[in-house]
Amino acid sequence: MGMDPRHAILFEPVRIGPKTLPNRFYQVPHASGFGSARPRAQAAFRGIKAEGGWGGVCVEYAAVSADSDEIPAISADLWDDADGRALALTAAAVHAHGALAGLELFHGGAASANGSSRGVRLAPSQRGSQAQWGGLAAEMTADDITRVRRDWVTAARRAADAGFDIVYVYGAHGYLMTQFISPVTNRRTDGYGGSLANRGRFWLETLAAVRDAVGDRCAIATRMSAHGRRGLPGIETDEMLRLVAMASDLVDLFDLTVGSWPEDSGSSRFYPEGHQSDWTHRFREATSKPIVAVGRYTSPDVMARVVASGAVDLIGSARQAIADPFLPAKVRAGRLDEIRECTGSNLCILREETFNQIGCAQNATAGEEYRRGWHPELLPAATNSGQPVLIVGAGPAGLECAVTLGRRGFGQVHLVEAEPEIGGRLAWIRRLPTLGDWGRIVDYRAVQLARLPGVEVLTGRRLTAAEIVDYGAPIVVLATGSTWRGDGAQPGHPDPMPGADPAVPWVLTPEQVAAGVRPPGPRVVVYDADGYFMGSALADLLAREGSRVTIVTTFPVLSPVSDETLEGEALREHVHRAGIDVVHATTVTAIQAVPGGPVTLTGTDRYAEAWSAVCDGVVLVTMQSSNDALHAELTADRGALAAAGISLYRIGDALAPRLISEAIFDGHRLAREIDGPDPAVPAPYRRERAGR
Amino acid sequence: MGMDPRHAILFEPVRIGPKTLPNRFYQVPHASGFGSARPRAQAAFRGIKAEGGWGGVCVEYAAVSADSDEIPAISADLWDDADGRALALTAAAVHAHGALAGLELFHGGAASANGSSRGVRLAPSQRGSQAQWGGLAAEMTADDITRVRRDWVTAARRAADAGFDIVYVYGAHGYLMTQFISPVTNRRTDGYGGSLANRGRFWLETLAAVRDAVGDRCAIATRMSAHGRRGLPGIETDEMLRLVAMASDLVDLFDLTVGSWPEDSGSSRFYPEGHQSDWTHRFREATSKPIVAVGRYTSPDVMARVVASGAVDLIGSARQAIADPFLPAKVRAGRLDEIRECTGSNLCILREETFNQIGCAQNATAGEEYRRGWHPELLPAATNSGQPVLIVGAGPAGLECAVTLGRRGFGQVHLVEAEPEIGGRLAWIRRLPTLGDWGRIVDYRAVQLARLPGVEVLTGRRLTAAEIVDYGAPIVVLATGSTWRGDGAQPGHPDPMPGADPAVPWVLTPEQVAAGVRPPGPRVVVYDADGYFMGSALADLLAREGSRVTIVTTFPVLSPVSDETLEGEALREHVHRAGIDVVHATTVTAIQAVPGGPVTLTGTDRYAEAWSAVCDGVVLVTMQSSNDALHAELTADRGALAAAGISLYRIGDALAPRLISEAIFDGHRLAREIDGPDPAVPAPYRRERAGR
Repeated sequence: MGMDPRHAILFEPVRIGPKTLPNRFYQVPHASGFGSARPRAQAAFRGIKAEGGWGGVCVEYAAVSADSDEIPAISADLWDDADGRALALTAAAVHAHGALAGLELFHGGAASANGSSRGVRLAPSQRGSQAQWGGLAAEMTADDITRVRRDWVTAARRAADAGFDIVYVYGAHGYLMTQFISPVTNRRTDGYGGSLANRGRFWLETLAAVRDAVGDRCAIATRMSAHGRRGLPGIETDEMLRLVAMASDLVDLFDLTVGSWPEDSGSSRFYPEGHQSDWTHRFREATSKPIVAVGRYTSPDVMARVVASGAVDLIGSARQAIADPFLPAKVRAGRLDEIRECTGSNLCILREETFNQIGCAQNATAGEEYRRGWHPELLPAATNSGQPVLIVGAGPAGLECAVTLGRRGFGQVHLVEAEPEIGGRLAWIRRLPTLGDWGRIVDYRAVQLARLPGVEVLTGRRLTAAEIVDYGAPIVVLATGSTWRGDGAQPGHPDPMPGADPAVPWVLTPEQVAAGVRPPGPRVVVYDADGYFMGSALADLLAREGSRVTIVTTFPVLSPVSDETLEGEALREHVHRAGIDVVHATTVTAIQAVPGGPVTLTGTDRYAEAWSAVCDGVVLVTMQSSNDALHAELTADRGALAAAGISLYRIGDALAPRLISEAIFDGHRLAREIDGPDPAVPAPYRRERAGR
Repeated sequence: MGMDPRHAILFEPVRIGPKTLPNRFYQVPHASGFGSARPRAQAAFRGIKAEGGWGGVCVEYAAVSADSDEIPAISADLWDDADGRALALTAAAVHAHGALAGLELFHGGAASANGSSRGVRLAPSQRGSQAQWGGLAAEMTADDITRVRRDWVTAARRAADAGFDIVYVYGAHGYLMTQFISPVTNRRTDGYGGSLANRGRFWLETLAAVRDAVGDRCAIATRMSAHGRRGLPGIETDEMLRLVAMASDLVDLFDLTVGSWPEDSGSSRFYPEGHQSDWTHRFREATSKPIVAVGRYTSPDVMARVVASGAVDLIGSARQAIADPFLPAKVRAGRLDEIRECTGSNLCILREETFNQIGCAQNATAGEEYRRGWHPELLPAATNSGQPVLIVGAGPAGLECAVTLGRRGFGQVHLVEAEPEIGGRLAWIRRLPTLGDWGRIVDYRAVQLARLPGVEVLTGRRLTAAEIVDYGAPIVVLATGSTWRGDGAQPGHPDPMPGADPAVPWVLTPEQVAAGVRPPGPRVVVYDADGYFMGSALADLLAREGSRVTIVTTFPVLSPVSDETLEGEALREHVHRAGIDVVHATTVTAIQAVPGGPVTLTGTDRYAEAWSAVCDGVVLVTMQSSNDALHAELTADRGALAAAGISLYRIGDALAPRLISEAIFDGHRLAREIDGPDPAVPAPYRRERAGR
């Protein structure tokens, strides 16, 4: 196979100021959890993208001074020369594969955390500074403005010295530059407030100063936001276009985003691919300089069309480059069906929002390049690859484990699935409203499995413990998944809930709803003690079919997990528009009903006072349970297992129900370490730390 | 002065197993934000307590293996030998002052975060494991139990090798040991579930194994919880007493706590000093081994009485040892009025809960011992101490700055306060319900000021800008504080709110309420867009006086900041019991009224739908503003300032309204760096990091 000629346009070099990008694939700055604190992990994470063919690879936001301490979030500080030396590892790793390295210099202004440094936050104005628990910002004096500009120049010099080819003046996403631009946050009456020219002055002055300092050595990039659907407080797109025109002579590359971060990185549940283009593609009106914009594009056909349209010069990517660092190489080789497409689940962002290092629902190796030495495409042959392996269950963990074992050279892997189709719970989750793109997890692996001669998939076959013992496989992996509890047991209340019995028609589990079972009347309560997507997705489904749905949730906001995936606001708006009521901070503790009569739910409100509601049926989204019957039966007689020479492992939800990214990681890890001393326990990984 | 003989009992040595504590002052394990990741900061932070006279000084929870990865919270991992070498610095720093060093080995079980490691959580049972967003734990197999016990022994050996004198088997606060003990979380049917002997088996086995391994080299401690007021799910105190009796032979020191962590570390707003003793003092019934228990004690008289009662052998302290590491030395020297008493604000815990390093509302040097080189008692003389200094404003920041300058040898510091009493806003905050102990911030500094000959306090004197210029002080520090806005401007809505005018009787500011102004009728809305203590404290005050109070808050829970100080649950219960209604997730955008008529508040609910309510008056707790008029006037003519030879600084809320701990830090920092190259900008501090 070779490259489809329609994709050749993506491999054209692009000149940006004094530098030339080797192609149009550009990994925009995005958080990794490594910053400058874990410089080897950062270098390996970015280097793999350059190796996979991305022509430009950027590090995440790097603070120009201690004014912006982001802890516990991890930014790539560039406060001093030691930080510069740490980040130089990344520039070198990116250069090793012929790509250009970018560093996104930033100042958080009023949005800085500063919890560790304990420094005061700075802002154009105090009044408009977003309060963090009453912790407002100090209005910048003229001296402050001078100092921050000087710090930016110093940081830019450090970035150039560290080998970076592209230096940003990061202005999007509500940080200091945007705080100056927006009249909502900028209430100044001096030369830096009022007219657009005044509000843009700090940005333009900083761009000019950085260009003066390093413009001969580096391409100067800036990141700006258009208005978008959800808006950018106080800033219209037309005004940003005028600012772009003012900045055009100072900038070698415009990196364009929309509105708020939750919109810019909108999930697949609520935003289609390319949703930003209505706004970002307008910027061509204002500048002829190179433009990069993101769109969560996964298809090279679409990428080529977008470039050919002339609206952008580079295809920006964050999430797709995480899901598949080798996308450019695969496009060039014409191996299009091997692209691991981003699901848009935003579990990568959840990891960052919970202050952990990057991870990915599709790519288990993301973030593990250095500490575990995992390469996304090159897998070492296993020393025990001659042994037959039986994997029971073809859900996400089982699929990933089978694919990874196959790529490690195992020649006799049987992946046995009880249901007629592979995918495990994803087989039905992908059919729920808004969750279709999650099916890419299954689709990618189905293609891989078809290509791996050592892996055989058998569906529709439910194995017994005895059959497993007799199967002839010395390595047995149980990936039997988990099931939503029908007995109403829930976090903090592990005993069954009186009246919770999925055998009666008015009590349903998510699996029953997915299988088409419906409550006996139109008034349905979805009881969500889980807090992620399942409650709202089922409510959405039932409401679309005409039920009058109320979600009762134990949480004070609906689906707090969705805030970590940036979906919270969109989700709640979606649910409200669907006419679904929500009762917050309420725990259901009993269900009472007689056949044909109304169903009464009783429980407690947020003050532990009695609460009740009447409905025709309730869907219990309380808690999952591992499907561990096979494991229990097999381990009841350890002697028999030993006699049969079987090493038994559990992965994914069969071990413990978790986020789908973690189930896949689990299946991958076992396959990576299957020839280690004790595959059941994760091997130690390298940690970067301060020495004693 | 010398020690009061009544306090001599506190300085008796106490034998614990093979070791002897030099006295009865014992800093129990508590988080610092340093762990083993910042070993020099950890060593300096703990070493200063040994220097201040604490006879036992412990490091925070240290995970025995990668099973418990607490990131982004900072635990003192002891996963490998490198971690042991890092923590050895702390043992050495503690030994340097003759104290014993303790290490609290722990396993989080189902409560582990594991977001960074991505390892599965382990628990006695999956069903009872607290779900973190559907992320349940794996039920431990027999192999898992064996492995964890072995890991504990390995970690204990590492701790002993690192020089620690006291090694814990940490069982309190809901971690793995408690998960085994509680029948709510332990649903096992094997030898580790069921009876107390079975549920306690893992704990006792681990104690025995650790004792076998290092019992000759180390004292073996364990930390257990009694039931307390809020309870410990499934565990009664009598059952814990029986467990203590079973463990007594294996243990050299019992470290006793109560119930949940929010109760154990209860704030002064909702828990009196020594509130735990009703439960913890019962443990003497079950063991004659040494016992340590905490009580947020600040008075040596009380401490001596508690020891003399025989209920405990050691005075455990976390928060008071943070507020004043030199409390034991001060007691020994009879300098009792120099003790910096803990306010019980729990801002130390807020810093940990927000994943930052430790800080303290009273002691600005806490956590800064290594990175900024600050000692709480020994301050270097300033090179410019001969210069007169004018500090305008005697609130927390001004007081701290004046005291610190005085201790640095400044001989002509004038602290000028416009009000008749010092304290700034604390002068009235301390008189609000539940907030009395916060007044200790003022009281401690008042004592210091009276002793510092170089500092003069002038109250009741409101200086004009011209008077400041003419004052004759080349160093001028503005600490003029902040004021609650009366115009209804609020986070995200910085423009004035229509109808918000504190000149009308139905619109009040917090300052007006504190000054005795009351709404014209009984139906009062406190509008809380701030999220910390002010809204609930004012509501409490008005409700106690008979008003019918409703809190309308922009947040989905009342006072989310209080969750970070562990006060959330107690606060909401307190407010509910006071008969105060709460309307959540609602934004007020306008106030309409005519004199004598009802007041109508209009705004939007959580879905941005129209909302309204009727009342007789509204208290606006929306946002603060720095009192910056003097600063504006003084800096309007920079030439005049320069001509007068004045260096002008701002500190505390006058610069930016923040948490009180940060205002005090700000005043301290300026005084520490007043002879640096640019005192207005924090000097760089040492960072411990992975080298390149």
